Amino acid sequence: MTMPKMNAAIFAAATAFATLLAGGRPVAAQDALPSWNDGAAKIAIVEFVGKVTRQGGPDFVPAPQRIATFDNDGTLWTEQPVPVQMAFALDRVKALAPQNPQWKDTQPFKAVLEGDMKTLAEAGDRGLLELVTATHAGMSTEEFTKIVSDWLTTARDPRFKRPYTELVYQPMLELLAYLRANGFKTFIVSGGGIEFMRPWAERVYGIPPEQVVGSSIKTKFEMRDGRPTLFRLPELNFNDDKAGKPVGINEFIGRRPIAAFGNSDGDLEMLQWTTMSGGVRFGLIVHHTDAEREYAYDRNVTLGRLDKALDAAVVNKWTMVDMKRDWKVIFPFEKR
Amino acid sequence: MTMPKMNAAIFAAATAFATLLAGGRPVAAQDALPSWNDGAAKIAIVEFVGKVTRQGGPDFVPAPQRIATFDNDGTLWTEQPVPVQMAFALDRVKALAPQNPQWKDTQPFKAVLEGDMKTLAEAGDRGLLELVTATHAGMSTEEFTKIVSDWLTTARDPRFKRPYTELVYQPMLELLAYLRANGFKTFIVSGGGIEFMRPWAERVYGIPPEQVVGSSIKTKFEMRDGRPTLFRLPELNFNDDKAGKPVGINEFIGRRPIAAFGNSDGDLEMLQWTTMSGGVRFGLIVHHTDAEREYAYDRNVTLGRLDKALDAAVVNKWTMVDMKRDWKVIFPFEKR
Repeated sequence: MTMPKMNAAIFAAATAFATLLAGGRPVAAQDALPSWNDGAAKIAIVEFVGKVTRQGGPDFVPAPQRIATFDNDGTLWTEQPVPVQMAFALDRVKALAPQNPQWKDTQPFKAVLEGDMKTLAEAGDRGLLELVTATHAGMSTEEFTKIVSDWLTTARDPRFKRPYTELVYQPMLELLAYLRANGFKTFIVSGGGIEFMRPWAERVYGIPPEQVVGSSIKTKFEMRDGRPTLFRLPELNFNDDKAGKPVGINEFIGRRPIAAFGNSDGDLEMLQWTTMSGGVRFGLIVHHTDAEREYAYDRNVTLGRLDKALDAAVVNKWTMVDMKRDWKVIFPFEKR
Repeated sequence: MTMPKMNAAIFAAATAFATLLAGGRPVAAQDALPSWNDGAAKIAIVEFVGKVTRQGGPDFVPAPQRIATFDNDGTLWTEQPVPVQMAFALDRVKALAPQNPQWKDTQPFKAVLEGDMKTLAEAGDRGLLELVTATHAGMSTEEFTKIVSDWLTTARDPRFKRPYTELVYQPMLELLAYLRANGFKTFIVSGGGIEFMRPWAERVYGIPPEQVVGSSIKTKFEMRDGRPTLFRLPELNFNDDKAGKPVGINEFIGRRPIAAFGNSDGDLEMLQWTTMSGGVRFGLIVHHTDAEREYAYDRNVTLGRLDKALDAAVVNKWTMVDMKRDWKVIFPFEKR
């Protein structure tokens, strides 16, 4: 048998097995995950969902406890050449520069305005935080939502020349829908800004604002001209990355997930917290292996690095998605 | 007509009107809210729900945006003579005293151990925070959940001699269920501890952990003996009270509620944030007026004071619930 044929046979057997486990109820993953090739990753997903949804089975999990958490950047949408929120921050610096003439001579703003990415990179996390607070604070929450929404309608990815919200992964959209059809509640748990994701996550991913967990800056409630206002302050409130992810999950969701999906070292602790808790649990890592259709990177990059979590995946038997091999299409627009 | 008869007539008319608004679909509030007398409060609730659920009507709100937020202490359950979580903290001080011999000579612990409530009250917010951190930190999140659950099975309210989870308001349980039956998502937004409420809120109120917003202390993720652990630290993370409530609503829910329910000045800003946003909105205050069946208090108490919000209710036309007049029963056990 050729490899694809053998995988198809294994998948057919796994589907039949999952259907059997589900007590005859068809799991219908073959239809629900059409952009996934019939490989080990797809088989692992279908087997897991079959086990936890089989009423009366040894691994059954009641629907309210079927919590699945997804990283966003690099897991649900593209994070190269720079994360989308950074592209937003850079554009905002340029847009706000006329009102901030001092930025021409102040780093890291000077570097942004001059397109000097080397100096910008050297500014590190502290420089990044300065950019974020300068561009994400100083307005009401409603004003910020409008700024983000407006930007997304006009901004284009430099390589694909498309709105960023079209650069989401079609197989992951199918996976989100498949899990929800099986009684899962799907959450985003991202290092990205919570208020940057909420304006579009429901439309694009089917994930409502109250199921988005992310990093945030502080806000302050005030009556302004007789109207209640939440004003965004230039101060970090919560960093929902790395060891912050289980903290955010506990604070916002209050239940331990039974499945977690990530792509980088920023997701390591979320995957540990989810899978190392006894019972049938599921961890998955999206491995960027397709330079032609998207990007290929893991240990060799700074932003979105997959190094420790790549080693941990082997030890913990997390499912690895090889984007090049496992996904028939990367983006929704390829289907057309 | 006598007053009750007149109210019944008004209610019947309002129900008919609401049914008409709902396009013939029966709202069925008379069945859904059996513990509410047919008065202005019940009429206002039914009218509001009828308006926002009437498809095609001028005030229709799509189901995903039907967010309703409820204070907990004094709104969903009894908060006198002291809030339940304070009774818990006091019991924990007594239970932990043998391992903390220094507490015999250190305030505010000394006052707790000697039952000296006057000195304890004088310790104020700072003393309270000391008690909370001493009793709510220093263990894993899982251990704390077990401590709370165990305590609730044995602790009894001093007046009613019942578990605290039985001292919830029957009319509010009906209201929660009625809103959910009409497509609302119900949230708790409480100054109380988020981890103190989550272990029982789903069983008692039908509100899952991910829909509980509350105050919190910091937690820290650590691998302990190869197991991922969230450890509770003796440091305040978020105070979900007064102006903190809109902040918490925005951070956790990310949508502005269309209905809010409270009972004290701690709920003022939540009610402002909810109702002063244009469109048909609903604010309700539970006024404790029944010293016989529960308690009577408003401006005259420290904890649970209703003063500014009582004035604001008039200005903003929030619905006032007069517990004595509006509620047929207070607690579920009265129905038996």
